[in-house]
Amino acid sequence: MNSITVRLNYQSDKPLYQQLYEYIKKEIINGSFKNNSKLPSKRGLAAYLQCSQNTVQTAYSQLLAEGYITSRQRSGYYVSAIDGILNIKEDCEKKEIKNNEKYKYKYEFSHDGVDFDSFPFLIWRKILKDSINEYDHSLLKTGDPQGDENLRRSIANYLHDSRGVNCTAERIIISSGTEFLLQLLIQLFDEDYIYAIENPGYQKLNMIFKSSRAEYRPVALDEYGLMPDELLKSNADVVCITPSHQFPTGTIMPVNRRIALLNWAGDDLRRYIIEDDYDSEFKYAGRPIPSLQGLDTSDKVIYIGSFSKSLTPSIRISYMVLPKHLVRRYYEKLSFYICPVPAAEQKALNTFFEGGHFERHLNRMRNIYKAKREALVYEVNNLLPDVKIEGANAGLHIVLKINNGMTEQQLVTSAKNSGIRVFGLSQYYFNLSVQNSTPSVLLGFATLKIDEIKKAVELLKKAWSN
Amino acid sequence: MNSITVRLNYQSDKPLYQQLYEYIKKEIINGSFKNNSKLPSKRGLAAYLQCSQNTVQTAYSQLLAEGYITSRQRSGYYVSAIDGILNIKEDCEKKEIKNNEKYKYKYEFSHDGVDFDSFPFLIWRKILKDSINEYDHSLLKTGDPQGDENLRRSIANYLHDSRGVNCTAERIIISSGTEFLLQLLIQLFDEDYIYAIENPGYQKLNMIFKSSRAEYRPVALDEYGLMPDELLKSNADVVCITPSHQFPTGTIMPVNRRIALLNWAGDDLRRYIIEDDYDSEFKYAGRPIPSLQGLDTSDKVIYIGSFSKSLTPSIRISYMVLPKHLVRRYYEKLSFYICPVPAAEQKALNTFFEGGHFERHLNRMRNIYKAKREALVYEVNNLLPDVKIEGANAGLHIVLKINNGMTEQQLVTSAKNSGIRVFGLSQYYFNLSVQNSTPSVLLGFATLKIDEIKKAVELLKKAWSN
Repeated sequence: MNSITVRLNYQSDKPLYQQLYEYIKKEIINGSFKNNSKLPSKRGLAAYLQCSQNTVQTAYSQLLAEGYITSRQRSGYYVSAIDGILNIKEDCEKKEIKNNEKYKYKYEFSHDGVDFDSFPFLIWRKILKDSINEYDHSLLKTGDPQGDENLRRSIANYLHDSRGVNCTAERIIISSGTEFLLQLLIQLFDEDYIYAIENPGYQKLNMIFKSSRAEYRPVALDEYGLMPDELLKSNADVVCITPSHQFPTGTIMPVNRRIALLNWAGDDLRRYIIEDDYDSEFKYAGRPIPSLQGLDTSDKVIYIGSFSKSLTPSIRISYMVLPKHLVRRYYEKLSFYICPVPAAEQKALNTFFEGGHFERHLNRMRNIYKAKREALVYEVNNLLPDVKIEGANAGLHIVLKINNGMTEQQLVTSAKNSGIRVFGLSQYYFNLSVQNSTPSVLLGFATLKIDEIKKAVELLKKAWSN
Repeated sequence: MNSITVRLNYQSDKPLYQQLYEYIKKEIINGSFKNNSKLPSKRGLAAYLQCSQNTVQTAYSQLLAEGYITSRQRSGYYVSAIDGILNIKEDCEKKEIKNNEKYKYKYEFSHDGVDFDSFPFLIWRKILKDSINEYDHSLLKTGDPQGDENLRRSIANYLHDSRGVNCTAERIIISSGTEFLLQLLIQLFDEDYIYAIENPGYQKLNMIFKSSRAEYRPVALDEYGLMPDELLKSNADVVCITPSHQFPTGTIMPVNRRIALLNWAGDDLRRYIIEDDYDSEFKYAGRPIPSLQGLDTSDKVIYIGSFSKSLTPSIRISYMVLPKHLVRRYYEKLSFYICPVPAAEQKALNTFFEGGHFERHLNRMRNIYKAKREALVYEVNNLLPDVKIEGANAGLHIVLKINNGMTEQQLVTSAKNSGIRVFGLSQYYFNLSVQNSTPSVLLGFATLKIDEIKKAVELLKKAWSN
């Protein structure tokens, strides 16, 4: 081998052994020190470099641990036979992927997000803080795969009392987001299962099934929701529906249709209904519509809910209620998955329930969103003459059917040009052949203030009146 | 229809309209009110029941919304044609699934969990509390699908400086747990990809692949780690390895073997290496072993890490660094998945990094775990004569090879009978034909105190000396 020519820098912050280690490693990598060549003895190198033997020993040990050199008994250290040439890059690459430039809207009728002024920051902050304490060893362990038992009990009580859901804590699985729950379900069911989704429906559903390589079929709706005849024709085994407030059309599925779907499920052992109750907390007139699951007497409904609308989407806590026999299957097949929600968050949410904060927050938000919806409906009726409002008096969005001669695309684009973001309904269709012919747009109202809603509708009036 | 015989209770907490609504609904469900029969007029019923018309109106509206009755223009309200008989269950089922009775060990040499006395409760509590404030609208929105950008930047810096990983924030995906990252990768790669896993290896890996319906092959190890020849024979496209500290054997993969695997990956466009750096933070002698990813010059390594060992498993934050071209593919195919980690937690972890707390915590934990490992090694060498300790001076577990004539099962059972939990190595083999013949057990030491380690090894001595 070439002689070791490193000059150790005694003034450097870098320890001497590390300087030596890095030097030798570099020489090995760039090929200056040949394979199988012998390294100087520790004593000899220490004397030559005028450092302690300990420095050489530490550098050699590290090279040995990483496999750059090998030690042969009673002979010394040798450069390992390293195949291939390495180029260790010195620096990180520069930022290579540009975010798309984001168009700056004045007002967005987003259907994702909550009221910005009403999140219970003070309470949540205190509860979350208090949930972290040194006497709670559960914060340092992997928890129950189904999620915190106390939280599951609170959710079960809430679902029973407010949504008429039949459940116990043992039947609940907590996860982070509907998409994760669906992935669990896809893994729970047999590989050849076919899934039916509402058309139009929640945009991500088809992406989740596609990405998970599960077969899915969009099934058309009529005014009452997903059509049982079409469902039967689709050959699906599992149907995903939003009966409390169909997304995006906003209709409530009448009891008749619910029973028809339950009967469909009852006709075959393989069949199940996935009920996504995504914004059922918000109904502004009359009592809440009870869940479809509560009508089910044959254990065929999987009930899914989340705290994305009721608290905030960034909390990432969702849950599902499984039929009893699926709980057993879940245990056998999937309980190795760790619950993805941090323990502190689960504990905090349970405290939030137990202190009655969740109920109070919901009651408060119901009033706030009701006022927003009323303001929006009032402004639309007042300012937009060619528009019909669709959907039930519920949820966090409305659908407008617009008869002013513009196409959906023109409606969306002219709104955008006036700084307003609205969502064309056709993007929620997985199969456009069944699409309603009247141009329609979706307007979410949760994130806008009442005066913003007024201003935004005024801008829409201008945009849509030429 | 039968006449309406409800007796409204004016003393009840339940509003009158709700009493009426519930009564009519019940009569419809149990069939007393026949399909298509006409309901009394609002005025007539109000007069009959001596309540206000408003009460009847509200009850009818709710029944209408739920589809139990329909309204016919200029005619009135009719019972809907409801097919099928419903039994609405009144009560939740009782707890139906018993948790397995848990055996109570005196001491568990668990490899899951962290030191109970050293989590920075005070700091984390304060930081998490401060992360929740009303001026931060990001807490009320769905965040970046890859995870909080600031946190990704902090992780990139950390990985670059301490693990020699080539990366930028743009290449990092934050998720909750290695299993979720692997599911993303399975969806990112083509359906026909075959995955190689270390044999022995991390138990959950095969379950994740199996459950996701991905083909996988266990590939045998020699003293340097996974064998390239066997890998080639397996026909796999992607190999999952733990080069910094193989789980469970504890060996560090030498640079030679690393290069052989990089060359394997370089030989085919389809091939990738998944490097799981699960406990690389803890090396107790010499410098840390740089990541395999840092050696990679052809963008073939996916680097995975988490905070389960360095902070706590219950925090549920993990990340992966993707090769550049896979970042593009991720954007196209999978960016619809919302990052499952709560926004507040991500923000808090970033503050923890930026304040230097993470580095300080790691340095502290390294000393604590080093002392625990030394105590364990000392006691084992001192008290267990027929035992050889395997694995590098790193990580949070050691492996014992035991030559006292007992089988692995006997070792585990006799330890259990003395109240000590140890883990037989054979449970980490996916294919026992390649298993090492010497009975071996795995001992994790992170959760035990030093005096507990001493007592536990003393009990092991008794258990294993008959």
